[in-house]
Amino acid sequence: MNILHNPQSHSFASDNYSGVLPEIMAAIAQANGGHLGAYGNDPYIAHLQNLIKQHFGESALAYPVFNGTGANVLALQACLPRWGAVICAESAHINVDESTAPQAVGGFKLWTIPTSDGKLNPELIAQHAHGFGVEHRAQPLAVSITQSTECGTVYTPDEIRAIADFCHEKGIALHMDGARLANAAAALGVNLRDITADVGVDILSFGGTKNGLLLGECVIVLNEKNVLNANGMKFLRKMNVQLASKMRFISAQFIALLENDLWLNAAQNANAMAQKLSGSLKNIQGVELVYPTQANAVFVKLPNGVADKVRQHTYFYDWDEQGTVRLVCSFDTTAQHIDDLLNAIGVAIQAA
Amino acid sequence: MNILHNPQSHSFASDNYSGVLPEIMAAIAQANGGHLGAYGNDPYIAHLQNLIKQHFGESALAYPVFNGTGANVLALQACLPRWGAVICAESAHINVDESTAPQAVGGFKLWTIPTSDGKLNPELIAQHAHGFGVEHRAQPLAVSITQSTECGTVYTPDEIRAIADFCHEKGIALHMDGARLANAAAALGVNLRDITADVGVDILSFGGTKNGLLLGECVIVLNEKNVLNANGMKFLRKMNVQLASKMRFISAQFIALLENDLWLNAAQNANAMAQKLSGSLKNIQGVELVYPTQANAVFVKLPNGVADKVRQHTYFYDWDEQGTVRLVCSFDTTAQHIDDLLNAIGVAIQAA
Amino acid sequence: MNILHNPQSHSFASDNYSGVLPEIMAAIAQANGGHLGAYGNDPYIAHLQNLIKQHFGESALAYPVFNGTGANVLALQACLPRWGAVICAESAHINVDESTAPQAVGGFKLWTIPTSDGKLNPELIAQHAHGFGVEHRAQPLAVSITQSTECGTVYTPDEIRAIADFCHEKGIALHMDGARLANAAAALGVNLRDITADVGVDILSFGGTKNGLLLGECVIVLNEKNVLNANGMKFLRKMNVQLASKMRFISAQFIALLENDLWLNAAQNANAMAQKLSGSLKNIQGVELVYPTQANAVFVKLPNGVADKVRQHTYFYDWDEQGTVRLVCSFDTTAQHIDDLLNAIGVAIQAA
Amino acid sequence: MNILHNPQSHSFASDNYSGVLPEIMAAIAQANGGHLGAYGNDPYIAHLQNLIKQHFGESALAYPVFNGTGANVLALQACLPRWGAVICAESAHINVDESTAPQAVGGFKLWTIPTSDGKLNPELIAQHAHGFGVEHRAQPLAVSITQSTECGTVYTPDEIRAIADFCHEKGIALHMDGARLANAAAALGVNLRDITADVGVDILSFGGTKNGLLLGECVIVLNEKNVLNANGMKFLRKMNVQLASKMRFISAQFIALLENDLWLNAAQNANAMAQKLSGSLKNIQGVELVYPTQANAVFVKLPNGVADKVRQHTYFYDWDEQGTVRLVCSFDTTAQHIDDLLNAIGVAIQAA
Repeated sequence: MNILHNPQSHSFASDNYSGVLPEIMAAIAQANGGHLGAYGNDPYIAHLQNLIKQHFGESALAYPVFNGTGANVLALQACLPRWGAVICAESAHINVDESTAPQAVGGFKLWTIPTSDGKLNPELIAQHAHGFGVEHRAQPLAVSITQSTECGTVYTPDEIRAIADFCHEKGIALHMDGARLANAAAALGVNLRDITADVGVDILSFGGTKNGLLLGECVIVLNEKNVLNANGMKFLRKMNVQLASKMRFISAQFIALLENDLWLNAAQNANAMAQKLSGSLKNIQGVELVYPTQANAVFVKLPNGVADKVRQHTYFYDWDEQGTVRLVCSFDTTAQHIDDLLNAIGVAIQAA
Repeated sequence: MNILHNPQSHSFASDNYSGVLPEIMAAIAQANGGHLGAYGNDPYIAHLQNLIKQHFGESALAYPVFNGTGANVLALQACLPRWGAVICAESAHINVDESTAPQAVGGFKLWTIPTSDGKLNPELIAQHAHGFGVEHRAQPLAVSITQSTECGTVYTPDEIRAIADFCHEKGIALHMDGARLANAAAALGVNLRDITADVGVDILSFGGTKNGLLLGECVIVLNEKNVLNANGMKFLRKMNVQLASKMRFISAQFIALLENDLWLNAAQNANAMAQKLSGSLKNIQGVELVYPTQANAVFVKLPNGVADKVRQHTYFYDWDEQGTVRLVCSFDTTAQHIDDLLNAIGVAIQAA
Repeated sequence: MNILHNPQSHSFASDNYSGVLPEIMAAIAQANGGHLGAYGNDPYIAHLQNLIKQHFGESALAYPVFNGTGANVLALQACLPRWGAVICAESAHINVDESTAPQAVGGFKLWTIPTSDGKLNPELIAQHAHGFGVEHRAQPLAVSITQSTECGTVYTPDEIRAIADFCHEKGIALHMDGARLANAAAALGVNLRDITADVGVDILSFGGTKNGLLLGECVIVLNEKNVLNANGMKFLRKMNVQLASKMRFISAQFIALLENDLWLNAAQNANAMAQKLSGSLKNIQGVELVYPTQANAVFVKLPNGVADKVRQHTYFYDWDEQGTVRLVCSFDTTAQHIDDLLNAIGVAIQAA
Repeated sequence: MNILHNPQSHSFASDNYSGVLPEIMAAIAQANGGHLGAYGNDPYIAHLQNLIKQHFGESALAYPVFNGTGANVLALQACLPRWGAVICAESAHINVDESTAPQAVGGFKLWTIPTSDGKLNPELIAQHAHGFGVEHRAQPLAVSITQSTECGTVYTPDEIRAIADFCHEKGIALHMDGARLANAAAALGVNLRDITADVGVDILSFGGTKNGLLLGECVIVLNEKNVLNANGMKFLRKMNVQLASKMRFISAQFIALLENDLWLNAAQNANAMAQKLSGSLKNIQGVELVYPTQANAVFVKLPNGVADKVRQHTYFYDWDEQGTVRLVCSFDTTAQHIDDLLNAIGVAIQAA
């Protein structure tokens, strides 16, 4: 097969525009060769389970899956009876970007809450955490928070703990969409368990793809006593069309990611580049930071017409219709990429 | 990451126990590096579409997905209204091995038919192809056949054409589960389109994983006028949790598979090894061939106790409770593997 | 409103072609007037619960619903996780006449078994009662039997007990589709509990409509420890679109049906008429009884052309394409109706 | 059966606390007797279709169903592909009071919008009417408005027309939840078609139960070219568990309701009583009208502690946690009931 693209290309569109970390490619190659039991009957999943326990605590149990929507639907369905609903932020990926998969595949309803920065808290959750036992109301038996959020903000351990306590007192399971969990942990300078298992998260969608994997996410049951269908996870994964036959190649990627701090290094680079970008942008007149830059995404309002001019150099998405754009940094974003972007923005603003 | 398995290991358990073809690994590496549009907004999918048209005809449209169950559920849902049902063989993968995904995710019913060798024909299909317009009866609006079948048998082009004609006359769409389509085409010595588009198949699950891909299947719409939701395929793929963000890595694998006859060479090897195995087994006294060996799987009844002894050397599955075992050959099965297996069987029979 | 039909008309098409028993009409009128709590917050449901316990045992809990498909889908969903399947006869109403509701609404799969007379037994059930714990296989966690069956046959208490013991040993819940339970009990001369709660049925669809109600069925949980979602029944009824707001009118009908042996008298008449019909038909040359007449339906094969001639006098359905017809008697079928039918058949045969 | 309740009781809890209009009871009795085709194969549905066309225009097609949730799920599913979503007010019954039926049975997502009085308009709808063609976003292909609304307010014909024009321009179907359509038409002094078919509503849930029926709603297709699955309505009704076998008893009720202005008289009484109540309440100091009283429901904020005292005399529901209560008038509410309620409120306020 011929290369059909420029392997030096870069963009700020999304961290899933990036490719695969070299260490991950090496792990895939290592896992190749010979015959191994399909569907996770292999030594790689066993080794991964050990690593997951090291990172997320002894009770953690990992179920590798294909993609983020699959991870979220599986994880939330695992928490809910057929009459269950999920409380989440209006900006949550599961509300905005997963088509009807939560409803038509997951079978659950979303109770959504507007937020100022993508983050929930007990007061906000309380708006929908009522009506328990009333059969007319879809029962709010799970809360889903995203870490780092779709707005690039990060929950502190204390904030998550407060949500978890609120949830558990009401019999609600706490799910975290951790598509960018690594970025959050790197930003806070904490271990993965410090913002998940140890602060009350019951079930986690642990993201790999956005942090340098070819493909793969992990649903991790952290506290099975709060996860209604915890003992049926393998059945749910299969029926939700998320069971890989050659699973060794997903497990191996996660092993490489979690060994030797690869996850951390990759996330730290993305975060650092976002900080560099954000730090410079906020000093440019006419540029307004929309959310605080706490992980690897920068949200700014640019002067009229600037975005489209800059997009002739590098690609990124509009975030809303008020002129906000989203600039996402990846494991392979370099200082030069940032400088080039800043330069293009500067030129465009002067021309405006 | 350390290697945790023996890369020289082999088994006859399933063609998804094997790993990844070297050319496929190379293609993945080629597609890596740089940033590319996610979700298929990249040049690889465009190139793949061209190749798919070369192999399946000008009207073919490919939708890469993650796995076989996902491909089947998506393809059949594409053909059906919410009140639709699928006629299939009792032995069909979609009936036997896909949990409740067809029902709970796909929302459709299966009308199953016992067969002698995994193959349907118009007479068999007619058993369930009635009741059109009666709202009490799940409407049989799709037929699904598997090529090569779960019993290792192969439909000839004429047999498929007869089924297609029967279906189309009644307004039924014809789906093919082609998880092992390559093996069937190789066995028949025909092109891929000769047993799909050109003989009336409307929509196809084209398998990659069992023929040497790391992971990936392709739903291919062959005749969109018979596929009810043909114009909503991209939405259906997303909501069925089958949309890959870094899709370039699935597309690249299929490009490598379809270029330079890699698909054919891999399938031919697996088939040839199955023929070699089958040819020798049928001459062993006490061994009974259960289905004709037409693709890459051999089904034999072994004398009492023999299977378990042989399994100490190499792994394979029991097929039923009457002593039949399934022996599947892969792209990397060698003559030596066959000889070793035959030897182990011979020894076990003599000891019995 | 003007009467648009002949209130003296009769047919043998189905017991749901009949209207409403006078005592049931009276009960509806009694329940009318004034304001009462909606959705079952009224004294009628409380009184009905007492009656249900008298008829089905102290642990019985009734959930009135709208129709038979709703009752079956609710009852089976109550027994199953999302990866669950139901073993049933190929002739079961839930397989043949409920469109895709079991799949698309219930989310479950049916494992169907051909039978000679609509009745399952442990040996037949065993064909599908395997694969427990294997995630690829839809888990057979419920068995559904119909009493009396769609073929007009009746399970004895011992036969049900044998099925229940087989099921419970394997962790399978036993559901009974009792759309014609009254006919079965009347035929056997037993109490309702003798063929349900007392012989191991875990959950029951108790039919009212076919025994003289205007509309209404009852899902009855008989043994909640075998019913997975027993504690969520009210939620499941609501989400399955089976919760009536003016529920008093369904409850009152069932109260009237279960008080003073109305259910029994109505069913006894229907059964007696079927016996009378069957007894005469089997003595007519050229008429062949297809199933034994054990409840209120008679299945006979008539000589060529006879059915259509008789249908000019009274309506009934063809049962298969081999010339079998189904003749169903109702609570309001009289000896005169039978004599008229026999006469019409006799005339048609002579003319043939 | 004995009467278990006081047929003179009254409440302001809901219009489904009331019983059945005498004319409706008479129609049920008229439809009884004799045998008629099940599932709508009878002369009553034919006559009802004529009446529906008289009231809703020549292209109207009615599908009687059991209840309001069933009507809404069926009507909206009729408009949507599997990847479709419904834009509705946050206060919509389908969002608040239908458990997970829209999601788990209907398979669709709700895009909800906060409103000040339960009413949508093009500006509000526009908040979610975007993202067409983007597979990640559940496609907003239906809008659902409630007439009269859950807040007791009424859309004018012009307001509905404006919404319909906005929707149709974008390819969105317009559904009306008309559980209380009669009250709206009576309030506006218009015909039923003036606020439905003639102002662009494509599909309607026409309510009967809250206007004096025993049980029954009608899904009415008004403009089939905007209803995606219009030609599959009978299949959808069956699979959504909403097909009555003795349908004549639902059809007959609707015939009686639509003949001789029974629907209008019943609704006018309920509305007039609400006006009387509202008119007096707004003159009582300390009582605050929360929404304008435009149909048959009054929403008022009562002084602290008053609601519970009044509830010792007559039942009604709290509407929110800020002290608002909902007082619903029915076809059988009398001036005496209103006076008694006003008196009880007056006494309680003085005692406060």
